[in-house]
Order: sequence, then C-alpha cells, then structure tokens
Amino acid sequence: MWRIAVDAMGTDLAPQAEVEGAVQAARAGLARVVLVGPEPELKERLSQLDAAHLPIEIVHASEAVTMDDHAAKAFRRKRDSSMRVAARLVRDGLADGIVSAGNTGAVMTTVKIVLGSLEGVDRPALAAVFPNSKGRATALLDVGANVDSKPQHLEQFAVMGEIYYRVIFGVSRPRVGLLSIGSEDHKGNDLTREALPLLRKLGLNFIGNVEGRDLYNGSVDVIVCDGFIGNVALKISEGMVEAISSLLKEAFGSSVPSKAGYLLARNALRGFKKRLDYSEYGGAPLLGVKGVTMIAHGGSNANAIKNAIRVAAEFVEGGINEKIEGELATVSMA
Amino acid sequence: MWRIAVDAMGTDLAPQAEVEGAVQAARAGLARVVLVGPEPELKERLSQLDAAHLPIEIVHASEAVTMDDHAAKAFRRKRDSSMRVAARLVRDGLADGIVSAGNTGAVMTTVKIVLGSLEGVDRPALAAVFPNSKGRATALLDVGANVDSKPQHLEQFAVMGEIYYRVIFGVSRPRVGLLSIGSEDHKGNDLTREALPLLRKLGLNFIGNVEGRDLYNGSVDVIVCDGFIGNVALKISEGMVEAISSLLKEAFGSSVPSKAGYLLARNALRGFKKRLDYSEYGGAPLLGVKGVTMIAHGGSNANAIKNAIRVAAEFVEGGINEKIEGELATVSMA
Repeated sequence: MWRIAVDAMGTDLAPQAEVEGAVQAARAGLARVVLVGPEPELKERLSQLDAAHLPIEIVHASEAVTMDDHAAKAFRRKRDSSMRVAARLVRDGLADGIVSAGNTGAVMTTVKIVLGSLEGVDRPALAAVFPNSKGRATALLDVGANVDSKPQHLEQFAVMGEIYYRVIFGVSRPRVGLLSIGSEDHKGNDLTREALPLLRKLGLNFIGNVEGRDLYNGSVDVIVCDGFIGNVALKISEGMVEAISSLLKEAFGSSVPSKAGYLLARNALRGFKKRLDYSEYGGAPLLGVKGVTMIAHGGSNANAIKNAIRVAAEFVEGGINEKIEGELATVSMA
Repeated sequence: MWRIAVDAMGTDLAPQAEVEGAVQAARAGLARVVLVGPEPELKERLSQLDAAHLPIEIVHASEAVTMDDHAAKAFRRKRDSSMRVAARLVRDGLADGIVSAGNTGAVMTTVKIVLGSLEGVDRPALAAVFPNSKGRATALLDVGANVDSKPQHLEQFAVMGEIYYRVIFGVSRPRVGLLSIGSEDHKGNDLTREALPLLRKLGLNFIGNVEGRDLYNGSVDVIVCDGFIGNVALKISEGMVEAISSLLKEAFGSSVPSKAGYLLARNALRGFKKRLDYSEYGGAPLLGVKGVTMIAHGGSNANAIKNAIRVAAEFVEGGINEKIEGELATVSMA
C-alpha cells in the first residue's frame, strides 16, 4: 500500500476532517496514512475513533499555515509547518504523496521548493475537474499555478493533463482541447495561436480550439489554458452556482410552496457544487512536481479528504510522474 | 425621438423578431425605427401588424450576413448587407444608432470601419451585462472585441464601462473592478499588474482587483478585463446554465415526481438564462465607436429587440459617447 502524508491542518475545520478522512481511507484500505500536525491533538482525536489497528501514523509538526499567510513568507518563516513537514516526508522517501487542503499558494510554493519539478517540466500546473452534463468529468489546467504562460508551457500542460486523465479516469484516448474564443484555428490570442500547432504535433487525441461552453457539455475531456484564465473560469463557476442557488431559493420561496420541489432542486445543485468543490474527485493535483500533491478545497469534509487520499494513491500506482517524464522526453527530442 | 436603425436580418428567426420588436418599440414610443432589409418582405410583415401609423420606416438592403460568414470577408463582399446599410445610415446622420442581432464579429468590423472610433479610444469594447444574486446587473467588458489588450486599453475600457453603467443603470458612482485572480494588488498577471495603478488614478469609484466569483455576487458594478478572458467568462456562464438545466431536469425526472417544483426551478433558471442572453438588457453595446451600436443575441425574440432599441435610444439620450470623449481627453492630459 502506498503511503500518503496528510497535512492535518489545512481544512477550515482542521484537524477534524483530516483525521476522520484518514480513518475512512485507512479503513477502506486505500493507503497507509501519515497524519502531519500537532501530535497530542491528533493522538487524542484518533483515539476517539477506534483507529488503533489501522495503518495510520502521526508525524509531529508544531506550526500551521493559515489562509491569510503569504505563500513565500509562510514557507520561509514556518519551517515546521504541517505542509512543509509533509513535503519533507515525500522528499525523504518516507511518503509517496501529499494531501493538503491548506492555503493553495503556500502548498504550491512548498512542494515546488522542497520536491522540485519533474524532468522536462518548466512549470507545474494545477488541474481542476469539472462535472459535465454528460455525467463525466472535464479536467481544466492550469487553474492558477502560473500566469503569463508561454506556448511551450501549454504544450507541457497538455501532455501532463492527458496522462492524468487517462490514468485517473481510465479513458484510453482522452480528447484534449485548447481553450480559446472560437473553434477555428485563427480565433484566439497570440498565446493560443502559437500554442495550437505545438499541441497538434504532440500525437494526442487533440481536437483543436474549444470554447468556454465546452467546459460543461462533455465534448472534451482535457482543456488546456493559461493559469490566469483557468483560475477565472474556476471562480466564475463557483460564483455562478452560488447565484443560481439563491435564485432557486427565491423562486421557491416567493411562489406556491413546493417544499419537495425545492429540496430536489437544492440537492441537485448541491451535488453539482460539491463536485465543483472537487470533493468527489479528491482535490486538484499539482502536476509536474516530484512526488504526488493533491490540493483539496479548504471546505473539504472527511469524505473529500478520503477521496483525495484515494486519488493520490491511484496517482502513484498509475505511475503518472514516470509517464510524464517519459513523454516529455519524447517531445523535447522531436 | 431618436432614430434607431435595426438590422432586420440578424436573429435566427429574422426578420420576424426584428419587425415585431420594432413595432413594440415604436408603439411604446421608445424610438423612431428604421428597419433595414429586403423591402418587399419587411413591408408585407409590417402590414400584417397594423403598424401603418407608427414611426417606422423601411430602408432596403439586398444582402444579409450569415453566422457562418467570415467578418472581414462579409464586410468586403456584401456591400449591400443589412448591417452595412444600417451603419451607413448612422454615418450619414439618417439614424442615431444601430441594433443588430447578426454575426457579432461582422457587426463589429462593419461599424468600426464605417463609423470609426471615438476620439481617445484605441480599441472599442463589447460590454455584456450579467445578472447577479443581488438582483442588480454587473457589466463586464471587453467580452470579445479585442484580445491581447495593453494596460492603456483596460484603462479606456474602465472609463467607457463606468459611463455606460452610470447612464443606463442610473447609478451615480458605480463600483469598478479589475478582473484578476486575487484581491491583493500583487495577484494577477503582467497585464493586470500594470493596469492596476492606471485604473486607480482615474478618479473612478475603483475597488481594485476582483475575482471571477464577483461577477455574480453583486459586489462590483463594472468589471474590466481583456476580451479573451471576458469572452471565455461569458461562454462558461452560458454553458454552465445549460449544464445546470439538464441537471435539474434529471433530478426531477428521476425522483418523486414534483411537476410544480420542476416548473418553478425551470422557470427560475430560464429567467436567469434569458438575462444572460442579454434580452432583458437589450444586448451588448459596442463602446468606443461613433454612433451607438447594440449587438443583440442571435436567439433574440421581439422583446429582446424592443429592449435593444430602448437601450440604444437611452444611450444616445444620455450622451454616452460625448461623455466618453470628454473623460478620455482628461485622462490623456493627466
């Protein structure tokens, strides 16, 4: 069983969600879990959960990075933070991957510095998974690890995203698209027009330019874009679900009361929102860094943490990093 | 009363929606309408609508630009297209503004060439209006007139968008934000970091960086961004509403039947979608071009066309273009 280090101080309700998620994952045999955080508290919580026989260890870390911390400063000043200690476990071969629901910027900075990038990767990319109307998943990357990408970065994102999708979703030839503002080749900006021929040459199942609406209609599996665009796309989606939720609430509140109908609508929307919050897909992987890093949402519950642990283990098991280095070596030789 | 030229061949159901919208607008005393398109057909349709006494004229145009036409080619080859004839009416002082639901790229190309830009405007911008959860409107620009914007273009978009919002929505000091990936000043890409200090100096009610989620939460009135980002944002929103619609349909279909509840949810969502399709706000104005251009959605119905005519007249009445030239002159002297 692979060994996954869980930063126990990341979620809004840390360490409760992390400890319970670790117990669920261990009980289901998904991985061995190393919980990283304040040892006395973690011990106490674990003891309440009848977890003595489970493959869970605790590694002490005296500090925690908060959502308000500046990423680089947090890295420099909090040397004994739970996320940094977790990253060191991977660096030292004591764990195979990390799950953290902490400050996204700080997690990215920490693992980039502590673990370093894979061979052939100029910039790692954060991939988010969106639910689509076909009941499948669409992966979008980068959603914020980098801005002002160059064409060759998008090329690397395409290779990494395709491998990730192939392994995690079990699709042999996922369709890859480049996010643009029209499907014709000449539509787009300088970046997409330069990236398009590079992506076309990769030998992937590349379907060319796709548009914003394709994020949700199931016509493409992996969408590649600069991190500024991807982050805006992610946050617009989150904001829109909120807006539609209140809209439905109002609609049901102001008219003939139909409690059952409202509950149905609300639950359907909650399901969608939950999938957007990536709890079902176990967080957003940071692709291109050594080891495996799954970044979960700050609002993650135990189930989301459990899924993040599961995906991290599948990521190691599927040899995603080895595949990325292998394919990028081919690209750079071409 | 202001005189608005309506390209009668733009909507998916042209010229029916245009003719009916013109009749509704004229009947409500919103404007004098000049319908531009195939005269015999327009005459025939008008005669069926008991419109003889209304301030509606017809100007003949023998060609129509289709959604499949390439913008620049359509402009060169279809010299007698309804949109080009409508633009000439404005150029020659025979109309004050244009409404077209035709091919967006072709409308933009046509009016930019025929009418030219306002003094001080390097690039016109297309503004879309999004419904927000506070029941107000959020304007986003540019949504696709330009890509690869420079910081000074965003500066001009801010000035134009603020004036438009002020006049059309009657808000004296609309809050203006710059679309970025975090509220702190250092968050963003090269473009937003360079644009931020320029926008801050404009003397607007500028609230700094805003994020994707702010498009729908009512915390800002006017959001400025490059046209690539804005177009992706618009199309993601459209795609997401579609996805949530099918999701709700499924939820109601697969569980305890609750017809009333489903209808409520569907209607609420349709209202939201309709507002996204800009029918309530009468289309997206192309700001920065001489005359007034309202670009309506291809799927517009008569009511949407009527609203576009109303907003075009309000645009002229409010002296938006004069205000834009006046304020940009101040900016360039600063």
